[in-house]
Amino acid sequence: MKEETWKTAITKVEPNKLLLRGYRLDELMGRITFAQAVFLAIKGDLPTEKEARMIDAMLVSSIDHGVTPPSCLAARTIASTGSPLNAALAGGILAISKHHGGAIEDSMKVIREAVRRKRELSQTQEETATFLAKEYKEKSKRFPGFGHRIHTKDPRTIKLFQIASDLGIAGEYVGMARAIENAIEHSSGKRLPINVDGAIAALLCEMNFPSELANAFFMLARIPGLVAHVYEEQTRMKPMRVINSKEHEYDGVPERKM
Amino acid sequence: MKEETWKTAITKVEPNKLLLRGYRLDELMGRITFAQAVFLAIKGDLPTEKEARMIDAMLVSSIDHGVTPPSCLAARTIASTGSPLNAALAGGILAISKHHGGAIEDSMKVIREAVRRKRELSQTQEETATFLAKEYKEKSKRFPGFGHRIHTKDPRTIKLFQIASDLGIAGEYVGMARAIENAIEHSSGKRLPINVDGAIAALLCEMNFPSELANAFFMLARIPGLVAHVYEEQTRMKPMRVINSKEHEYDGVPERKM
Amino acid sequence: MKEETWKTAITKVEPNKLLLRGYRLDELMGRITFAQAVFLAIKGDLPTEKEARMIDAMLVSSIDHGVTPPSCLAARTIASTGSPLNAALAGGILAISKHHGGAIEDSMKVIREAVRRKRELSQTQEETATFLAKEYKEKSKRFPGFGHRIHTKDPRTIKLFQIASDLGIAGEYVGMARAIENAIEHSSGKRLPINVDGAIAALLCEMNFPSELANAFFMLARIPGLVAHVYEEQTRMKPMRVINSKEHEYDGVPERKM
Amino acid sequence: MKEETWKTAITKVEPNKLLLRGYRLDELMGRITFAQAVFLAIKGDLPTEKEARMIDAMLVSSIDHGVTPPSCLAARTIASTGSPLNAALAGGILAISKHHGGAIEDSMKVIREAVRRKRELSQTQEETATFLAKEYKEKSKRFPGFGHRIHTKDPRTIKLFQIASDLGIAGEYVGMARAIENAIEHSSGKRLPINVDGAIAALLCEMNFPSELANAFFMLARIPGLVAHVYEEQTRMKPMRVINSKEHEYDGVPERKM
Repeated sequence: MKEETWKTAITKVEPNKLLLRGYRLDELMGRITFAQAVFLAIKGDLPTEKEARMIDAMLVSSIDHGVTPPSCLAARTIASTGSPLNAALAGGILAISKHHGGAIEDSMKVIREAVRRKRELSQTQEETATFLAKEYKEKSKRFPGFGHRIHTKDPRTIKLFQIASDLGIAGEYVGMARAIENAIEHSSGKRLPINVDGAIAALLCEMNFPSELANAFFMLARIPGLVAHVYEEQTRMKPMRVINSKEHEYDGVPERKM
Repeated sequence: MKEETWKTAITKVEPNKLLLRGYRLDELMGRITFAQAVFLAIKGDLPTEKEARMIDAMLVSSIDHGVTPPSCLAARTIASTGSPLNAALAGGILAISKHHGGAIEDSMKVIREAVRRKRELSQTQEETATFLAKEYKEKSKRFPGFGHRIHTKDPRTIKLFQIASDLGIAGEYVGMARAIENAIEHSSGKRLPINVDGAIAALLCEMNFPSELANAFFMLARIPGLVAHVYEEQTRMKPMRVINSKEHEYDGVPERKM
Repeated sequence: MKEETWKTAITKVEPNKLLLRGYRLDELMGRITFAQAVFLAIKGDLPTEKEARMIDAMLVSSIDHGVTPPSCLAARTIASTGSPLNAALAGGILAISKHHGGAIEDSMKVIREAVRRKRELSQTQEETATFLAKEYKEKSKRFPGFGHRIHTKDPRTIKLFQIASDLGIAGEYVGMARAIENAIEHSSGKRLPINVDGAIAALLCEMNFPSELANAFFMLARIPGLVAHVYEEQTRMKPMRVINSKEHEYDGVPERKM
Repeated sequence: MKEETWKTAITKVEPNKLLLRGYRLDELMGRITFAQAVFLAIKGDLPTEKEARMIDAMLVSSIDHGVTPPSCLAARTIASTGSPLNAALAGGILAISKHHGGAIEDSMKVIREAVRRKRELSQTQEETATFLAKEYKEKSKRFPGFGHRIHTKDPRTIKLFQIASDLGIAGEYVGMARAIENAIEHSSGKRLPINVDGAIAALLCEMNFPSELANAFFMLARIPGLVAHVYEEQTRMKPMRVINSKEHEYDGVPERKM
């Protein structure tokens, strides 16, 4: 008896013809950017022109953050043993998890829940944010997506929100994220600015992304950075060196303009 | 005594300021696409406008190829055990290797070597290609990047070369790839068309990419496809099913136009 | 200022001297088996002689289960692309998760909770098991570690419990596992025999293992099986074959006696 | 038409019956150690009693080497991001490669080639070793399996060779390894003692193991150590700490006797 067939809705493969979510792949090529194709592959439909520009900005914002993140350290460590690029990248991706990159997913859940609450109780966003800040303080919980070890005014957040505002994408979710930022400051006296994870979370909410795919978004964005680090490790460093991420210096191209 | 510092030339991280290859990350955001940022991160300089469009088309061409490639099978198998997305993606990437995706790197080496030979011996590309086809036949070697299990006229190759031609990127390396395709047919009587790996190889040669990064290019391009498959497996299939990649049917959106 | 030191309690490394959990490694070599060393490394103390024999039997019981488990399929799929052994093993391990191997951890939690309940309420194990079987039935929950796709009387479970009984290791937790098996049958009319995961779970409870390490136990045990499959794939199969785990035949050594 | 079946010679799975390399798994349980089962699974036949004891000693010798090896750093780094145990182990295994663990495979090849040469040319082992030491010196090549960053008299090597000698396993290959050690000293004036990789290599040669499986041997042996490190990281350290492997202190059990 024939094994039961199973169904897939992503790509239809026929001889000399490929359909991605219904579109001929060769018709998409040259007409859409990779960022648009990413959106199509994952969400099932093409983004609007504005969403496409937002996605591009978000992916660019997360492409690299130097040598200290654990994904970089894991990838470089594996590369330094002579393992090939795909092994080093796999190791890097395995380090993108709850505490690194994972804040996006958690932050989306918090922001969505807050907006849901606001709507249900017909509150202002300030009322909801104040309530949540109080609740988190009492339970000693931290808001995912707020605060950064290094940046007090994360330039990526500022730019992402500015672009979102220009494109008309910033709405209720971005508003709620900002309200939470203010409410935390009121409640604790300390400013924990929205970090890049929180900003991306708010924007993925605006574009109706499933939160389960938030980390995928970050992993994709970080791959090119990891590739650059692995290649640098392979071509510039001695194998099996002891890697202390703190003891590094930047010696690349000095600041330049586009 | 202080540990010796080590050097990195990719990203400079300062409080509230990030430089990617010398450019402020927040100035790049909104002005360049993700594909341009990929080129910058990996190669160290921004692509020209034409190169940027070429890269986008190449990344789009490789974004997915349905459920049969081993990277998809590995990722889905891992996902079906309840492992999280990053584990499934890592498994998928570990399957992008010598025989899957790896043809790009090998193909770049063959095409580069052929062009080098042509120049040194002041041959026409036909002479070099004929020589190589004869040599490969005698040694029973296969040309990496030619022939496909499913496609006889790979629509992706056709489109990539057309775009490359429109953009003025197609040059000596694309010419050599085509010459080899013809020489194989002459020598063996069988047409082994340039496949998408071979086409990307020729184009990466035109843009002076290191061949060691060819696979990185393919891995990056395929991540969104793998994400879509893992998410479909997680949300639509029963855990621990026995996955036979042949027994599937497409039930997604029917063919549609942009 | 010097970076703060961090502490580790596993291995002390000095020139020409290695201490594993306080014992000189070269004094352990030749005197203890690998299974005893595994127990020492993970738990921090040497097992008793009886525990050591139990651990050996448990590890042997899980060493392989043919080509159908997802860990084997993932490892073979990765190997078939030309990736090296460590990549294939990593992929196999990534497939040992909630629904494959993971039942041991979940089963330990259920058995421990049952024994705790029995003690607190001064019940007989039958009373506790009956209560739980009823509760699980009402909530349509499945007991992890009971039932198997293939085996109705798993020979591994039978032998593990027999050895545990001979060694005097089988106690309250094994008793509870058996009581649950009976209570499920009473409550549902269907016999879901304790499978090898459930048996190992009960025995790890008897030896006071942290449940968080249960999966580690299974992963370690399965590595040699995965190595054998990867090596067979590399040396006996064509690269990039489409692997359908159902369509296989055993052609190894016929049944033989020790 | 039915898909072609493929063959496997490792494990035969029938309802209520499992054969590993022809032996009933439940008959092996309780009668052989895990180390014996490892040998059986990988090589296809049971080891002799002496080989079994040798394998146990070799696995014990490699079970851990503290926090500095890259496999440990990769595993701990991944664990510190909140990734589960299997992800951290996978990352650790990906770091066991050419320059870490991989010396065993390379060393086996060198020792086997040396013994083959000795036999073919009817040389003494000293003559062959002297020739090789000269050749390596002229080509500035390093002998894999000789020398160690930390140990000048590796206690593991000394013990492994002593056990091998007691068991009558040390033969032509161990002799050749020792002869090479002496010849290097003669030729360079520097003693590069056989390290644990070189010792294991010589012993795997004596037991006729395929060199392609040498790294598998080391990976298996190191898993318990990695498990212990990951568990320590998960239970004792703060998430996302910056891990500098040099800045650690041992605070475990002081030296003790069995």
